[in-house]
Amino acid sequence: MAGRKVPYDPATANLLCYASAVPSFLDGSDTPRAYLERCLETIEALEPEVRAFVRMNVDGARQAADAASARYKDGRPLSVVDGMPMAIKDVHETEDMPMEVGSPVLKDFHTGWDGAAVHCLRKGGALILGKTVTTEFAFAAPGPTRNPWDVSRTPGGSSSGSAAAVGARMVPAATGTQVRGSVLRPAAYCGTYAIKASYGAINTLGGFPSAPSLAHLGILAGTLEDTWSTAYYISHTAGGDPGHPSLGGEPTLPSANKPRRVVRLESAGWDVTAEDTRAVFEGYVETLRSKGVEVAGRADDPDVEALEHKLRELPEVILLMLTYEGRYPLAVYADRCPELLSERVRERVEVGRGLTPADYAGALDWCHAFRRQWEAMAGSTDAFVTLNSIDAAPVGMPVGNSIYGELSSVVGVPTLNLPLLALDEMPLGVQLLGYFRKDWELVGTGRWLAEA
Amino acid sequence: MAGRKVPYDPATANLLCYASAVPSFLDGSDTPRAYLERCLETIEALEPEVRAFVRMNVDGARQAADAASARYKDGRPLSVVDGMPMAIKDVHETEDMPMEVGSPVLKDFHTGWDGAAVHCLRKGGALILGKTVTTEFAFAAPGPTRNPWDVSRTPGGSSSGSAAAVGARMVPAATGTQVRGSVLRPAAYCGTYAIKASYGAINTLGGFPSAPSLAHLGILAGTLEDTWSTAYYISHTAGGDPGHPSLGGEPTLPSANKPRRVVRLESAGWDVTAEDTRAVFEGYVETLRSKGVEVAGRADDPDVEALEHKLRELPEVILLMLTYEGRYPLAVYADRCPELLSERVRERVEVGRGLTPADYAGALDWCHAFRRQWEAMAGSTDAFVTLNSIDAAPVGMPVGNSIYGELSSVVGVPTLNLPLLALDEMPLGVQLLGYFRKDWELVGTGRWLAEA
Repeated sequence: MAGRKVPYDPATANLLCYASAVPSFLDGSDTPRAYLERCLETIEALEPEVRAFVRMNVDGARQAADAASARYKDGRPLSVVDGMPMAIKDVHETEDMPMEVGSPVLKDFHTGWDGAAVHCLRKGGALILGKTVTTEFAFAAPGPTRNPWDVSRTPGGSSSGSAAAVGARMVPAATGTQVRGSVLRPAAYCGTYAIKASYGAINTLGGFPSAPSLAHLGILAGTLEDTWSTAYYISHTAGGDPGHPSLGGEPTLPSANKPRRVVRLESAGWDVTAEDTRAVFEGYVETLRSKGVEVAGRADDPDVEALEHKLRELPEVILLMLTYEGRYPLAVYADRCPELLSERVRERVEVGRGLTPADYAGALDWCHAFRRQWEAMAGSTDAFVTLNSIDAAPVGMPVGNSIYGELSSVVGVPTLNLPLLALDEMPLGVQLLGYFRKDWELVGTGRWLAEA
Repeated sequence: MAGRKVPYDPATANLLCYASAVPSFLDGSDTPRAYLERCLETIEALEPEVRAFVRMNVDGARQAADAASARYKDGRPLSVVDGMPMAIKDVHETEDMPMEVGSPVLKDFHTGWDGAAVHCLRKGGALILGKTVTTEFAFAAPGPTRNPWDVSRTPGGSSSGSAAAVGARMVPAATGTQVRGSVLRPAAYCGTYAIKASYGAINTLGGFPSAPSLAHLGILAGTLEDTWSTAYYISHTAGGDPGHPSLGGEPTLPSANKPRRVVRLESAGWDVTAEDTRAVFEGYVETLRSKGVEVAGRADDPDVEALEHKLRELPEVILLMLTYEGRYPLAVYADRCPELLSERVRERVEVGRGLTPADYAGALDWCHAFRRQWEAMAGSTDAFVTLNSIDAAPVGMPVGNSIYGELSSVVGVPTLNLPLLALDEMPLGVQLLGYFRKDWELVGTGRWLAEA
């Protein structure tokens, strides 16, 4: 059996947009309940092949949709997410569904309480439709999810189910989390927009603690508008992580803002990027230039060269950090039930046991120095462009190479996936990176790139 | 019935010291199991009046004690905490006991996994003897615990049971947590040593999230030696909080280090400090001077005056921060089961709902500025001394005024309770504060003060 395959074209992909449905809720020509039913029809049709969800609460979503429909009818929606069907990565706690994080260790683990972001989404009227597949502990053994554009391919990971659900038009938006590209790469593979905001700008409490100094809650959505408004909504209701301010800017999408100069980054990923992928990206860089944007690279600017030089060390640094931080809780599980862990998790725990506080302190120092070097570019450069993956989604189950996702997590800067490219009739994403706590500015630049 | 009352004298209080028992474990004249049984005898005698524990796992502790005894017999203890009976504040998860955080909302809440610090303590051979009483959500309604020196008085809070258990000689050491004095004040009221290390130096993961940008895991113990070695052990096994290095220095107590100049801080607490408490502290300052330490105050130094001036704003800032951060998870509980919350928790949730991201960002800015002002004192001043409470433990159940505990949590600097004073035959503590990530240096100064 061949399986679902739909040629991807960014110009016609036409993923769901919730914001554009809201006027019809207000004028009575549509309702959140009807919107939900259309989502459920898509899910019914595609889920057997795509397998985005671990579990769903359809009855709960329908009840919430009816309540939202009544509010729109009265002209009084609760928030920008009122009535929005959302898929929640199975790393966040929810009151009505367990949180298993892709592991038999946490089979049926259920605190019975919503995490911070989920609570605020639900309070704002969002429909918490289901929990989506993640890889084991959000980094190891892949789940069953397949790419909605070609089910012989991976959706990427670890936010596999969230990216597939949005890419398959099952829902307009979903949550993801990222330590090392786990939001951006699946978004790129599945053709969705996504934001990983500045470190700390979106509250991650009430979920599985994956390497918390690198962990971000991100939003994947069918449009940049829903991406931003959902991220902003959470950041301004649940707040940021403790000790961090909320997102700057406004609740609605900023105006498109043409960058004067962007830096095109190779990072450690370029060496291992497939030739055909490189060619598509080179073509994109030429397009940017043709539209009057200066695109500088390592050959043009000694500061960029210095950054690229330092970037070669990053894969080793981030691996050390996430291995050290990941000792809790993975080492707890490894001590009690090693047989329930994949070989990869057991290996990581073993490496973690060998790391010392001095090793970790050295990695932290590296990060602080690199962040200063990055921020020093602000005088000359509006944003940075690179890829989110070394390829279009590969055939088979491994979730792809995470190398392009390392930079933004370590530096903590905001980054977007812009689903502007295609390769082999599959989505290919542009990664746009900005400066710490300048998310609003970055999204304005991203809007210009998306519309240009 | 009069109830237990034992006149407190710091010179003769003689709380438990685990480190001093270790040589006798190694030479065979004592064993961790016998040590535990002595602790259990004390608990049996005093617990009916003191009520330090929510629950205990005596069988588990005895098994662990026997295993530790065998290791010492072989001359191969696992760590400095091997065999040490420890009381765990009921805000940390443990695999064998629920975590209820002093609230019926979390009645029997049990993840089944040890938190990060508990896991490492257990791996190092510590006996996880029981969970100790905390106030509701570690700040509101008091628990049943009474002060072991006079059971008509409070033990302080929120680490009520941990302080009482150490002060009653039930255990040599216990964990506490502090957002606003919840380690130091109960330690001061119960006559124990305690450290609240630099922000982030001791891993807090796997527990109740109380205002995480201000929250610290602290250690209360009968001696400064056990205090430091236990804190250091956790910091170098579980690590610090993600993004933070472990404690500097060495695993064993530093040499006593006489300070040249200390600043005596009033902070917002002095105005509301009882006259008799002031007099004891003034006497202590004179003692320091008589031993050749320069003690400067606001009248002597414009930098201190500037610090004191700014400190007047701190109570408002910290209240805003912990109220904002505390919205998760308290607002989640308030939405579902307000009837299970005390009036004080419900009020805090209500205030929290009215706070904006801009309010919180303003408080963060205040903290950053204040931290710089504090660190700028390092050129002239070795450490800071003040009180940990406005009084000796008051009669009745309220857990006392937290005002002296606010500073170190907001600034993130290390601080100690030194149980060096007495008032009305009750303990009164000296608070010694230092500089961020200079915990080792501070403990050396504290040792000098304790021995002088």
